[in-house]
Amino acid sequence: MSEKTIPYKIYLEENELPTSWYNVRADMKNKPAPLLNPATLKPMTAEELETVFCKELVQQELDDTTPYIEIPEEIRNFYKMYRPSPLVRAYCLEEKLQTPAKIYYKFEGNNTSGSHKLNSAIAQAYYAKKQGLKGVTTETGAGQWGTALSMACAYFDLDCKVYMVKVSYEQKPFRREVMRTYGASVTPSPSETTEVGKRILAEHPGTTGSLGCAISEAVEAATTREGYRYVLGSVLSQVLLHQSIIGLESKIAMDKYGIVPDIIIGCAGGGSNLGGLISPFMGEMLRGERDYRFIAVEPASCPSLTRGVYAYDYCDTGKVCPLQKMYTLGSGFIPSPNHAGGLRYHGMSAVLSQLYDDGLMEARSVGQTEVFEAAEQFARVEGILPAPESSHAIKAAIDEAMKCKETGEEKTILFGLTGTGYFDMLAYERFHNQEMTDYVPTEADLKVGFDGLPKVE
Amino acid sequence: MSEKTIPYKIYLEENELPTSWYNVRADMKNKPAPLLNPATLKPMTAEELETVFCKELVQQELDDTTPYIEIPEEIRNFYKMYRPSPLVRAYCLEEKLQTPAKIYYKFEGNNTSGSHKLNSAIAQAYYAKKQGLKGVTTETGAGQWGTALSMACAYFDLDCKVYMVKVSYEQKPFRREVMRTYGASVTPSPSETTEVGKRILAEHPGTTGSLGCAISEAVEAATTREGYRYVLGSVLSQVLLHQSIIGLESKIAMDKYGIVPDIIIGCAGGGSNLGGLISPFMGEMLRGERDYRFIAVEPASCPSLTRGVYAYDYCDTGKVCPLQKMYTLGSGFIPSPNHAGGLRYHGMSAVLSQLYDDGLMEARSVGQTEVFEAAEQFARVEGILPAPESSHAIKAAIDEAMKCKETGEEKTILFGLTGTGYFDMLAYERFHNQEMTDYVPTEADLKVGFDGLPKVE
Repeated sequence: MSEKTIPYKIYLEENELPTSWYNVRADMKNKPAPLLNPATLKPMTAEELETVFCKELVQQELDDTTPYIEIPEEIRNFYKMYRPSPLVRAYCLEEKLQTPAKIYYKFEGNNTSGSHKLNSAIAQAYYAKKQGLKGVTTETGAGQWGTALSMACAYFDLDCKVYMVKVSYEQKPFRREVMRTYGASVTPSPSETTEVGKRILAEHPGTTGSLGCAISEAVEAATTREGYRYVLGSVLSQVLLHQSIIGLESKIAMDKYGIVPDIIIGCAGGGSNLGGLISPFMGEMLRGERDYRFIAVEPASCPSLTRGVYAYDYCDTGKVCPLQKMYTLGSGFIPSPNHAGGLRYHGMSAVLSQLYDDGLMEARSVGQTEVFEAAEQFARVEGILPAPESSHAIKAAIDEAMKCKETGEEKTILFGLTGTGYFDMLAYERFHNQEMTDYVPTEADLKVGFDGLPKVE
Repeated sequence: MSEKTIPYKIYLEENELPTSWYNVRADMKNKPAPLLNPATLKPMTAEELETVFCKELVQQELDDTTPYIEIPEEIRNFYKMYRPSPLVRAYCLEEKLQTPAKIYYKFEGNNTSGSHKLNSAIAQAYYAKKQGLKGVTTETGAGQWGTALSMACAYFDLDCKVYMVKVSYEQKPFRREVMRTYGASVTPSPSETTEVGKRILAEHPGTTGSLGCAISEAVEAATTREGYRYVLGSVLSQVLLHQSIIGLESKIAMDKYGIVPDIIIGCAGGGSNLGGLISPFMGEMLRGERDYRFIAVEPASCPSLTRGVYAYDYCDTGKVCPLQKMYTLGSGFIPSPNHAGGLRYHGMSAVLSQLYDDGLMEARSVGQTEVFEAAEQFARVEGILPAPESSHAIKAAIDEAMKCKETGEEKTILFGLTGTGYFDMLAYERFHNQEMTDYVPTEADLKVGFDGLPKVE
C-alpha cells in the first residue's frame, strides 16, 4: 500500500472491534511465578483470593493457559462509547524531526477518565456487578485509576469507595471533583474510617499518606464490608489481560494497512499499558511468527526494571497483599516526592518481569526534564497534551526516530500514548519555571528497598 | 436503514471531510447589518478593518454572497489531526431517560484545546502566517479560546500574545500553563504593557480586570506592533464560517445513515458553536428544502437573545471595535461573577441575531444549577465530562427528550457538545458542595446595559 494512503488517524469500525482479550501468558514458555500467601508463603488458592477480589477476576488472574477470553457484551457496549481509540500516524512529528522513521501512536486519552485505565476499570466493575456486589474499594495516587473506576461504577450503578493519598487529595482537588461527579466517595488516606488508618494516624500524626497506606485501607474497607471487593488498576495479570484491547486494536488497524512495526514502545509503571499494548505482538514473537523490538520506558527516579532485582516481594507497603515475583526496588523504596507523573510503583507486573528476564523485552530509564521537553515538543506539533507518564514513551520514540535520522533507516515505530495531562499542569508549570529536578536514586537509596525484601526459599 | 445498524459513534473517513466551509449569509434573504465605524458610524471598509484584522479574514467577514469558501489545504491537514469529530448516538442517555427520542451529539472536545474553538483558531493563524505576519494578539477569559489559539500558533510558528483577564489568570493557573506549553506569552490584564492597561490600572488600582479591558489591550498590542494583527474567537461572521465545519460534518454523517434531525440545539454565548452547527441545516431551510427547529440555549444570567434588544452596540467595553447590530444586553452589562461557564458575552453574532429576529430560530435560557445537574447526569451515562457551556445544550436536549417521553414522539434531536470540563472543576466543586447560585438579572440590572447603548440613527 502506498505511503500516501495511510490516514492521519486510523479508526476501526465497531464491527472490527476485538471480541476477546488476549492472554499472553498462554503463549509464554516460562510462566509468571504464582502469587504467594504472605502468611504461609504458599501459592494463593482461588478461595483465598476470592475474599479480596471478585470471583471471575480471580479466575482470570490465575488462568495462564487460555489464549483468548471473550469480552462480555456489556463491556463491549461500554467500550463502544470511547473505543476504538485512534491509531495516529505522527506525520507532524516526523516532519518536525525530519526523520525517515514512520511513527504511530495508539492514543488512549479520548475518554473522560483521560487514560487507558478505563479499559480495565469497566471490566472489573462489570464482574463485581455480575457477582451481585454492592460496591468496590480501591486506592488512587495521582487519580487516573480512581477516576476511571468511578466512571465505570457510575455506569453499572455500583458504590465506589476511593482512598486517595492525602497529599494528592489536597494538591489535586480537581481529580477529586471528577470522581465525585461520577458519584464516588473519596476519602483522604490515612483516615479514621479504617483500623489501619487510625493506627497509622496515631503513630504518625500529620502524615500526608502513601499509596501503600491507601491500599491497606482500601483492602480493609473491602474485606470488612458485606458485598464489597477490592480492585486494582495495574500490576495484576488480569489488568494486562483487559488492557490487551490496546494492542489488539493496534494490530488490527496496522494489519489493515499492511503496516508492521519494528519497535514497540510503552511507558512502564506497574505495566498495565505496556503489557496491554505489546501483548498480541509479543504473542506472535513467542509463537515464532515474527520478530519485534519491545522497549519499556521507566522514570530514572523509579527504575524497577533497569535497576531492580527479580525476586518475590510485597505488593503493598502494608504487606497484606499476596507476594509476587517481579522486578522490584523493594516495597520500602520511596520514590522522590518531586517526581511528577505516575509510574511510581516499586515493582512491575509479573508477566512483564518474566518476559524481561527472558530477554524478550528491553528497558531503559529516562530523566524527568527530558521527558517534559519531549512532551512539549510533541504537544506543539501533534496537538495533544500528553500526561507525564505517557511522555516517557514519547521521549523514547523521539530518540529512536532520531537514530533513524542518523542511520537513514526507515523504521516503523509504534508507541502507546496512554493519556492526557489536563490534571498535571502543576508539573508542567514547574517545568516552565525551571523548577523541575531530576532525581536519580543512589545505591544507598536502593539498598533501603532491597534490604526490606522478604526472604522466600 | 434499521435502527440497530447505527453505531455509537459515526466517524467519517478522511476523504469524506468537507473541503469548503459554508457561508450561511449567502442564503439569507435579510443579510446581517454592516459593521459600523465607531467614530463615523459609517459602514467599515475593508481597508479600515485590515488595520486590525488579517486581510483574507476581512474578506471573509464582509462576504455575504459566496456560499462555499474553500478550506486551504494547510488547514485541512491540521483538521485531520483531530477531525472528523465523532457524531455520537447517545444510546446510554436515551436508555437512562427512557425516552423514545433519538439523541445525537457532535462532540468537539477531542482535541487538546478541549473545545470547538480550535476550528477557527487554526484558520485565523493560517491566514496570519500567509500574510507574513510575525504574530497575533487576543484576549481570553476562561481560557478556551486562548488555549486553542496558542496551539494553532505553535503549529504555524507564529508568536501569540494572550491577554488573560487577571482574575482568571490567577484562578485558572492550569489554563495559563497549557498556553505556555504551546509557547504563548500570557499577560494578566490589565497590565503595564499597554497604554490602555496603564490608564485603567491608574484609575482602578487593584482591579481584577474584565474581558472588555483585555480586548482593548489586545487590540492596542496588535495595532501598535509591526507585523501583528488582532484575532477573536467568537461573534464575528468569519468565525461562524470556520465553525460551519461542525455542521457540515454532522450533516454528512447523518445523511450517510439516513438520519434527519427534527430539533438542533446549541449553547449560545457569542454564537460560534451554535452558528457553526446549524449553518448547513439552516441553509436547507432558507432554500426551502427542509424544515428544522433550531434552539439557542443561553444562561439565565446573561440572556442576550431572550431578554436583550436588537440594536447596534459596541462589541467591546473599551468601545474601540466596530459597532455591530445584534441582540445585546449592552456593552455595560455585567454578568454575575458567580456564573461558572463562558457564555458571558453581552451580545450575539450578527448572523444569529438576524436569523432569530426573522423567526427562524428559537431561544431559551436555563439556570446554572439545572445545567450542572444535566451535566452530571450526562457524564455518568455517556462518559464525557462536559464543559459548563456545553451543558446548556445538554439541559435543553434532555428537556426535549423528556417531552417526547410524555407525548410518545420519536423525535430525533441533535445537539452540539462543544467541549470538556477538565478546567472547570472548581465550578463542579461548588455544585457538589451546593454553593452554586442561580443569578437572574433584574429589570434594573438590564437597564444599566440598555442605557449605555449607542445612539445610531
